Amino acid sequence: MEKIYIIGIGLIGGSMALDIKNIYSESSIYGIDINDENLNDALELNIIDEKGNLNDLSKADLVILSIPVDATVGIIEEVLNNISDTTLVIEVGSTKQLFCEVIEKNAKRRNVLATHPIAGTEHSGPKAAITGLFRNKTNIICEVEKTAFKLQEKALKLFNDLGMRIRYMNPVAHDKHIAYVSHLSHISSFMLGKTVIEKEKNERDIFDMAGSGFESTVRLAKSSPDMWTPIFRQNKENVIEILDDYIANLNQFKSLMEKDDFDTIYNEMENTNRIKQILKGIE
Amino acid sequence: MEKIYIIGIGLIGGSMALDIKNIYSESSIYGIDINDENLNDALELNIIDEKGNLNDLSKADLVILSIPVDATVGIIEEVLNNISDTTLVIEVGSTKQLFCEVIEKNAKRRNVLATHPIAGTEHSGPKAAITGLFRNKTNIICEVEKTAFKLQEKALKLFNDLGMRIRYMNPVAHDKHIAYVSHLSHISSFMLGKTVIEKEKNERDIFDMAGSGFESTVRLAKSSPDMWTPIFRQNKENVIEILDDYIANLNQFKSLMEKDDFDTIYNEMENTNRIKQILKGIE
Repeated sequence: MEKIYIIGIGLIGGSMALDIKNIYSESSIYGIDINDENLNDALELNIIDEKGNLNDLSKADLVILSIPVDATVGIIEEVLNNISDTTLVIEVGSTKQLFCEVIEKNAKRRNVLATHPIAGTEHSGPKAAITGLFRNKTNIICEVEKTAFKLQEKALKLFNDLGMRIRYMNPVAHDKHIAYVSHLSHISSFMLGKTVIEKEKNERDIFDMAGSGFESTVRLAKSSPDMWTPIFRQNKENVIEILDDYIANLNQFKSLMEKDDFDTIYNEMENTNRIKQILKGIE
Repeated sequence: MEKIYIIGIGLIGGSMALDIKNIYSESSIYGIDINDENLNDALELNIIDEKGNLNDLSKADLVILSIPVDATVGIIEEVLNNISDTTLVIEVGSTKQLFCEVIEKNAKRRNVLATHPIAGTEHSGPKAAITGLFRNKTNIICEVEKTAFKLQEKALKLFNDLGMRIRYMNPVAHDKHIAYVSHLSHISSFMLGKTVIEKEKNERDIFDMAGSGFESTVRLAKSSPDMWTPIFRQNKENVIEILDDYIANLNQFKSLMEKDDFDTIYNEMENTNRIKQILKGIE
């Protein structure tokens, strides 16, 4: 792969660029970003080699689309109009259903691979890019059969070189399950941060009392609203469904406390301790 | 300090024992625990020198009380009956109000220091004990003026040697604020774990999709029900109050989603991003 265009030089796009430069020394990486400051940062940090332009995508061997999910569906048609017949376009957003629907009828559908690398941090922008972000992480690929064989192969080689393990899923199932194991966590964290900030607004130094447990549960509340607002919009139904369950469980916990039923509370916590085994696969 | 008795050789008591043995090489550490297996583990791991007995506390220079908060209020009278006039008793539980009330009229009140070291992990038992757990952590001391001067001094030297910074607070304020910045996080995490486990019970390998974000928000759901049930019981009013606020914020978020008011959702998240600055003091 020689010419690689990355649209969106943030945490994900920038981290991919860093790894790709390490792995494919002959490649040239062109960055495209709506924010020129990001591009300048990316140049300075040696994340990209040059600024790129959507009009030049016909020269691209690979295009990585790593922008907020609403911007992705907004720009994909223009991208596909501009690429060559042999260009691979890898899209890496956190929702998959709408994107797959939008490209379904496109004449260049077979140039696109819809993926979701389960990797990231709570930081954003090119300065948040790090090498090795994708090593040992899961990459979910949707509708792989709709991508041309040779381009599938090219993409899988890249993911393999990045150190990722692959899971295949349909986009509807992806969006449902990712609401449970990712999107809900972000809401619980944002609302936890909001609740405590509101409560403590007149007593700032009370955060002296917070420890690593609070830090851990509220970490995702640092995430970018630009990334997350469109994710919640696109995955609205699944998110509302699981948020309902979460609120119901919190209400039940509160009601057990009000009734002084601490035996049931003990059992609830003990049952949930099973998360230890479940998380062993993640850590 | 020569003879140190630690009642409850778990994460906190065990970690204190490890540091104390490093700092005060002349000391002997006696472990007391309702669970004999814990004591055997602690002996094997060189956390304690010998098994101890409540009847021997008159020989103790220092007693550390690091057991669940309901057990603490249950045992404190017996402990104080057994110590000498010069023994320092340091209590390290996560709630302070009830404990301070219980000891208020005790003839040995001045032998006791009520503290809350804001340190720990989600693990428990002597095998979870680690050296340096308390370094650069906050220790909240309640009603310091009710402890004898010489024993205050002795305790502060110990905390200083452990590397802790001290904050003084009254027990009522402690319990209120710790509900916000610690107890609520545990409930949000336990209920998040519960919600997702219930939702995914028939599809175990879906946790392959979970990433570090889920791991971080659900980490505290590994915590010990033995420790946490009595904490929630003792701090019931404060916990219910903040849990109410949290549920209200989650309901509001859900209602904004239902109304497709994603502009407000964006603003909510952006406002909560302030948590970055707040957390800088913790990390």
